[in-house]
Amino acid sequence: MSLLIKNGTIVTHEESYQADIYCGDDGKISAIGQQLDVPVHTQKIDADGQLVMPGGIDPHTHMQLPFMGTVASEDFYTGTAAGLAGGTTMIIDFVIPNPRQSLLEAYHIWREWAAKATADYSFHVAITWWDDSVYQEMETLVKEHGVNSFKHFMAYKNAIMATDDVLVASFSRCLELGAIPTVHAENGELVYHLQQQLIEKGITGPEGHPLSRPPQVEGEAASRAIRIAQTLGAPLYLVHVSTQDAVDEIRYARDHGFHIYGECLAGHLLIDDSVYLHPEWQQAAGYVMSPPFRPKHHQQALWHGLQAGHLQTTATDHCCFCNEQKAMGKGDFTKIPNGTAGIEDRMAVLWHEGVNTGKLSKHDFVALTSTNTAKIFNLFPQKGCIRVGADADLVVWDPDGTRTISAKTHHQRIDFNIFEGKTVKGIPNHTIQGGKLAWSEGKLFTKPGTGRYINRPPYPGIYETLTKQAEYNAPFAIKR
Amino acid sequence: MSLLIKNGTIVTHEESYQADIYCGDDGKISAIGQQLDVPVHTQKIDADGQLVMPGGIDPHTHMQLPFMGTVASEDFYTGTAAGLAGGTTMIIDFVIPNPRQSLLEAYHIWREWAAKATADYSFHVAITWWDDSVYQEMETLVKEHGVNSFKHFMAYKNAIMATDDVLVASFSRCLELGAIPTVHAENGELVYHLQQQLIEKGITGPEGHPLSRPPQVEGEAASRAIRIAQTLGAPLYLVHVSTQDAVDEIRYARDHGFHIYGECLAGHLLIDDSVYLHPEWQQAAGYVMSPPFRPKHHQQALWHGLQAGHLQTTATDHCCFCNEQKAMGKGDFTKIPNGTAGIEDRMAVLWHEGVNTGKLSKHDFVALTSTNTAKIFNLFPQKGCIRVGADADLVVWDPDGTRTISAKTHHQRIDFNIFEGKTVKGIPNHTIQGGKLAWSEGKLFTKPGTGRYINRPPYPGIYETLTKQAEYNAPFAIKR
Amino acid sequence: MSLLIKNGTIVTHEESYQADIYCGDDGKISAIGQQLDVPVHTQKIDADGQLVMPGGIDPHTHMQLPFMGTVASEDFYTGTAAGLAGGTTMIIDFVIPNPRQSLLEAYHIWREWAAKATADYSFHVAITWWDDSVYQEMETLVKEHGVNSFKHFMAYKNAIMATDDVLVASFSRCLELGAIPTVHAENGELVYHLQQQLIEKGITGPEGHPLSRPPQVEGEAASRAIRIAQTLGAPLYLVHVSTQDAVDEIRYARDHGFHIYGECLAGHLLIDDSVYLHPEWQQAAGYVMSPPFRPKHHQQALWHGLQAGHLQTTATDHCCFCNEQKAMGKGDFTKIPNGTAGIEDRMAVLWHEGVNTGKLSKHDFVALTSTNTAKIFNLFPQKGCIRVGADADLVVWDPDGTRTISAKTHHQRIDFNIFEGKTVKGIPNHTIQGGKLAWSEGKLFTKPGTGRYINRPPYPGIYETLTKQAEYNAPFAIKR
Amino acid sequence: MSLLIKNGTIVTHEESYQADIYCGDDGKISAIGQQLDVPVHTQKIDADGQLVMPGGIDPHTHMQLPFMGTVASEDFYTGTAAGLAGGTTMIIDFVIPNPRQSLLEAYHIWREWAAKATADYSFHVAITWWDDSVYQEMETLVKEHGVNSFKHFMAYKNAIMATDDVLVASFSRCLELGAIPTVHAENGELVYHLQQQLIEKGITGPEGHPLSRPPQVEGEAASRAIRIAQTLGAPLYLVHVSTQDAVDEIRYARDHGFHIYGECLAGHLLIDDSVYLHPEWQQAAGYVMSPPFRPKHHQQALWHGLQAGHLQTTATDHCCFCNEQKAMGKGDFTKIPNGTAGIEDRMAVLWHEGVNTGKLSKHDFVALTSTNTAKIFNLFPQKGCIRVGADADLVVWDPDGTRTISAKTHHQRIDFNIFEGKTVKGIPNHTIQGGKLAWSEGKLFTKPGTGRYINRPPYPGIYETLTKQAEYNAPFAIKR
Repeated sequence: MSLLIKNGTIVTHEESYQADIYCGDDGKISAIGQQLDVPVHTQKIDADGQLVMPGGIDPHTHMQLPFMGTVASEDFYTGTAAGLAGGTTMIIDFVIPNPRQSLLEAYHIWREWAAKATADYSFHVAITWWDDSVYQEMETLVKEHGVNSFKHFMAYKNAIMATDDVLVASFSRCLELGAIPTVHAENGELVYHLQQQLIEKGITGPEGHPLSRPPQVEGEAASRAIRIAQTLGAPLYLVHVSTQDAVDEIRYARDHGFHIYGECLAGHLLIDDSVYLHPEWQQAAGYVMSPPFRPKHHQQALWHGLQAGHLQTTATDHCCFCNEQKAMGKGDFTKIPNGTAGIEDRMAVLWHEGVNTGKLSKHDFVALTSTNTAKIFNLFPQKGCIRVGADADLVVWDPDGTRTISAKTHHQRIDFNIFEGKTVKGIPNHTIQGGKLAWSEGKLFTKPGTGRYINRPPYPGIYETLTKQAEYNAPFAIKR
Repeated sequence: MSLLIKNGTIVTHEESYQADIYCGDDGKISAIGQQLDVPVHTQKIDADGQLVMPGGIDPHTHMQLPFMGTVASEDFYTGTAAGLAGGTTMIIDFVIPNPRQSLLEAYHIWREWAAKATADYSFHVAITWWDDSVYQEMETLVKEHGVNSFKHFMAYKNAIMATDDVLVASFSRCLELGAIPTVHAENGELVYHLQQQLIEKGITGPEGHPLSRPPQVEGEAASRAIRIAQTLGAPLYLVHVSTQDAVDEIRYARDHGFHIYGECLAGHLLIDDSVYLHPEWQQAAGYVMSPPFRPKHHQQALWHGLQAGHLQTTATDHCCFCNEQKAMGKGDFTKIPNGTAGIEDRMAVLWHEGVNTGKLSKHDFVALTSTNTAKIFNLFPQKGCIRVGADADLVVWDPDGTRTISAKTHHQRIDFNIFEGKTVKGIPNHTIQGGKLAWSEGKLFTKPGTGRYINRPPYPGIYETLTKQAEYNAPFAIKR
Repeated sequence: MSLLIKNGTIVTHEESYQADIYCGDDGKISAIGQQLDVPVHTQKIDADGQLVMPGGIDPHTHMQLPFMGTVASEDFYTGTAAGLAGGTTMIIDFVIPNPRQSLLEAYHIWREWAAKATADYSFHVAITWWDDSVYQEMETLVKEHGVNSFKHFMAYKNAIMATDDVLVASFSRCLELGAIPTVHAENGELVYHLQQQLIEKGITGPEGHPLSRPPQVEGEAASRAIRIAQTLGAPLYLVHVSTQDAVDEIRYARDHGFHIYGECLAGHLLIDDSVYLHPEWQQAAGYVMSPPFRPKHHQQALWHGLQAGHLQTTATDHCCFCNEQKAMGKGDFTKIPNGTAGIEDRMAVLWHEGVNTGKLSKHDFVALTSTNTAKIFNLFPQKGCIRVGADADLVVWDPDGTRTISAKTHHQRIDFNIFEGKTVKGIPNHTIQGGKLAWSEGKLFTKPGTGRYINRPPYPGIYETLTKQAEYNAPFAIKR
Repeated sequence: MSLLIKNGTIVTHEESYQADIYCGDDGKISAIGQQLDVPVHTQKIDADGQLVMPGGIDPHTHMQLPFMGTVASEDFYTGTAAGLAGGTTMIIDFVIPNPRQSLLEAYHIWREWAAKATADYSFHVAITWWDDSVYQEMETLVKEHGVNSFKHFMAYKNAIMATDDVLVASFSRCLELGAIPTVHAENGELVYHLQQQLIEKGITGPEGHPLSRPPQVEGEAASRAIRIAQTLGAPLYLVHVSTQDAVDEIRYARDHGFHIYGECLAGHLLIDDSVYLHPEWQQAAGYVMSPPFRPKHHQQALWHGLQAGHLQTTATDHCCFCNEQKAMGKGDFTKIPNGTAGIEDRMAVLWHEGVNTGKLSKHDFVALTSTNTAKIFNLFPQKGCIRVGADADLVVWDPDGTRTISAKTHHQRIDFNIFEGKTVKGIPNHTIQGGKLAWSEGKLFTKPGTGRYINRPPYPGIYETLTKQAEYNAPFAIKR
């Protein structure tokens, strides 16, 4: 059934105007305008006093991830449904092969798991090892499977950590294929060393977690990944930037003419590292994720990063582990499964703390929750905008609506919420996914499998610039 | 007569795609698409292999300006015609009242002068003095005459220099009215002091000009204007940023969450201060403008500023003085009329040095020559974009065309060209102004008076953020 | 009587070693070494386990200053005595002529007031207006009265504020005379504007004070003064740097090869602006001084500034106003006399928060409390070091001693202490001034008039560099 | 025989004064003063009009180093003699064990080689591999052999490169032992990758050398080493900082309260990367060293680094390879032995370009050529100062003397000089090493073996601060 959104104010990453939107049966936006002629049986939503924005894209989730001896509690259905309840209509999740595992094999396993998703989805694929087959399979993924980004973990020594030789090889390969390398930037050697040292000193509780991953450990890895990319002429996207240190590294590169992208998690914008000192172990452990929450002044750096354009996207690193799972790390913080929820809350939290305070305009909000991600990962203008012909992924936002966030009422499959008790003003009133109403006034209308896998073609916009630069600056031999 | 541009690639500030454009009789874009149905007598341009972009907007020109005892040689007709030959379809010029002169009186004089313009135009109005009548007339200009920006000269002591009290008063008034304060940032006291000192030392030639206005003199004024705006909660636009120092000040503010705009002149991107050492006086004097051309490393700072988004617009400060006029300063560089041409060359020069080298993408080019100016000064989406309903101001760009810049062949009314002899690749093949072909394959089809005065409404986008911030951070009294 | 300090560890700005010190009758250090031969009746101090350091120099005090309609409560005797109780053996106070008052006249008045001082003293002279007589009298002060520094207030509009023309003229004159210009860096126009605006809004209590002088107001003035000095080739010393903004400006200049000096007050290192929200007016008003106490993150910037060498000295701006005097501003914060005490506490507070935490070494401590001031203001090696022939101004420091700071027990003539209740570890056990024991184990042994006026000759060390630079970079005329 | 230096001006890192210096038979300074009583047969040097400064210390030399299949042409005798001719009285050279070689074994080999030195010397020891024996031998070197610094090469993959795990282990061990880790900061993986890529592209000449080691490769490694040291709480010294990028990293750390030391080579201050484009292979190859010479703007960054105190020492990386040796890399730049001379020219070049231009004061010069190195490596006040009791290592400097640098006349054992043809003003007139005249008015008076091995005790000054910080910030477990 087709859908008409009436009387709303359309808000994009660069402008606002009054118009109705008609979403056709094909899941696309068919018309935008005043007094639209629509079929009789069209479903109608009155968006009077509300804002109609592109649906959110969360570029960083881990549904049902096998990790640290357990599996993330949220599956692709429940997780994407929770996202829709929060205004997010697409995710980019991660295929993470084990070292020595075929990338394609892993990719197909993840595709199977994701078949039940109710929002659209795509995958970054992690490079956790290197040999010729990896080199080959990267090409297959890009050319045949719509993958245009590869992830590298600079942390997690003795597991999935990519050392410099792997980074150099993989970034180079990305460049050949028109793909975007992304990194989790933490120096794994230092983390490993500090973990051992802390455990030896008897610091075994969750307070050890941030101590084992201090800000400069992220700054270091950010600097390294950026300079490797720079040297090779490759693009780079840093996931979950959480520190002043890493923002400063991105800024430094950007201020020297390099195009580096940075992502910021809603949690890091609001929560500081005092949570790890909570007297109850379970409460403190609930916040264990990497990078950890940081001393308060880093939050300002992240906001400034978003405002100045040094950080371009917001995400969640949604990776749910319930209290029972967290308990695996009792007596040894290094064994607490790293991760927590956020997909349902990201947009409301960013609106409340960003737009209501004047830190961000509502156009910035759209850019940071949707459009920029679509552009960077070559989904634009299929996603991330409101135009005739674009996917009808929309959120009708009530800037005056309020909600008190709680694990008791959220739709995420986890018994903990890092924003517990926070009341936000500005909430998704309706979410439209592929032209269908998926969330409306507090109710989900979803079913498994309605989400689609989205191919992301190679050579996103940044490649035009990189290619020109490579040509212009090509080294040459001196005739002697 | 209506006009069809066929087979071109449309390039906007954020995307490229193949489509034809139909410009209606009303001077607006009527349709964009493939196989457009058009009336029989429609004029057709074949843009095969070419790029169709929004016409350039030059936010900084001074046609027929009375200045330093003479009058700029280019009038509103010749100047705008030269602009069209260069792909620029609109200018924002300056009304500069004498101290004690009524703003409105000056405004009407300039409107009269401008009536012969053949491209669209608008006016910034300078605040060169202060009293209650200025305060009142600012409101009239904003509310009744479509002015949304006011200019302040921090240099030119004993003439039009605005001291801090004037800046505070005028920026505050702008804030009340929804206007944008702009500044020429150079510390007038220092310039005055250095001029006297140099003349005393017998340094009277054009080489004295840059010595009297060293980079930190601009950095100082940039810092001051920015901090005054910041303190008041006002927006700010810095014209002709020419130094690392000023870019660093803008960057510092932006990196701390403030929205400061910076403009860059084509000349400052390419030409360094060695020109003032030319053994022929006339040649050296031809480059005298303020701020002066700078030591070479400042150019990189400007490019980096454009790339990182710290500078958002490009302009020319087009203000022509012929050799004969320059000669007024023989024997005393402080009497050489400040200014030179550029409106015809800005776009080609920026393309050649920016896009061909990979410093800028073609989307950046559109943003920097047109769209950003339209957004900042509230002309968007009437100007600066390619959409149905927008003004049909377009340039059909030939990325492979070349031209050797010379005073002998340019259309500017000046006997000197700062880019003399430079061959650029990438030139405007056709310029369409208000739906009419104004420039085509080397020929101008203009006549005086076809340009329109463009009203710029107050409260451009930035005001949403500033207002929210002011509310959120409003000071309050402690109850005691 | 001569004095022997035995068994202590000598600590200078660059080293520590075990040695005894013999102070002769002439008030100078006569010998340093082991097993010194001394006259029989020599007074002996056992410094076992203690550190013997150069006496503190406070480069910023205002004893008995007439200001804002009252007079600072501490006179030159009581103030210097309190300094000795805190380990400070010399002050540099300020002569502040009224606009239109002769500099020499003011200088002589201050000299008279200061005759009762019990520690050594010297004077900066303020330039609060400008004409030819000021130009002339500056020379007399430098050549005949041992003044080598002049102060400029960039704040206090309609009173003693120096505008840019005065700054340019006076800095230039300093350069001719081999003197150091110093500035109080706050933009007086902005402060004035904000004060009026706040009062209009009904914000009349002490909380209005910091709101009227936000950090960027200091950053602006710092930038301006620095760039003016830079342009003229003059040195510059910024008093009481209190913000990240100003530290950043100093850093920027220093990182570009300029020699800018910055001073930091003990109070700004420890106290934040929450004090102005105190529910009791009198308590909040006690902290009113300019620049005001700042949001907490500025403290870290100041510490980093000290650590990185961007700030070289510590001071107090000791200017006491009692509760009764502060009450003049009830109902209008702009009338609260600006200033408070600190001379007795500076060194202990800096030791406690700096050295005990590892932020500073004990050598840094000596440099920051004494040696650097002596070098900058050309008192070294008469002051600021421990050498044979230097003035015997020493403090014997007990790193394990503790003291709880309180107005009830301090020796300062003021009924308020901004550090009230703070317990510090590390205190002056003995203070020797001019070879005489002035403070010992909690008791003062001072009498009025024992302090000496110290001449400071022109052309301190920095001038060697500045002169070479001026010669090397001298502008010259092009032959044409 | 004892020695008297008469009528000179003593210049130290912090002051200048007129005095004579008497050097006793024991090689120490015995007296400083006017009219000194000296034995009859004392040798006398008239230093009228000249400056007497502490002898230079070159903290970075490689005499007779076996490297890249050959051995550096300069031995410990010829190299130190050339140093004395240039005013340098001590070197710190490097013991570089092969991977798997015992540190002690290598140490003893180097000691044997160095026995013929004619200036004083000491050794950094390189950590080129890691196991338990390395861990143990580091202790022996520190406790029994006077080594207090260990070097780490982050470049030279497949040879002596230290990976992150080695850096973490070795820096930690240094911290336990009170030693200073030092690093050659270049990312070896990137260099290796670029070398292969360039060779594949047919770029085999010396112009390939800088292309294989772009500035960000140094910036990366600097950032990494600094952050590793920071995280562990260890000190750090970066050898031969050659780029803006690395200076910026050091600055960033220092501006955040960390004590990072940086060294700068005389060559990098003056020579840019255009030398690699020389049409003659041999000429271009003569400049091959790592890090390479850089684009010109990096020089200004280095000067600013020295001026602002971000870089504290100057050195040469003196490592001579003659033309014949360089020829090993014909056809493959990666095989050109890396290194060149400088020990004889460092001081004169720094004086000429630094002091004569006003970039540095003469006190800065002493600090940068001698005192700072002595302090950092715990040689102060035995070395680096002019005091009674200090080693009589002195240089009598003629600020008006000139010399034209040339391989034809220099004393270095190499047939090439990177400063060939440069005329400097300011030269060593006499050099006194251990109280004996070693160089005087153009003549060397040296013989092999008169230099002494200098023990450097652990725990230099920086350790006081680091220890306090570690205590103050020690992590602790939360009680639950």
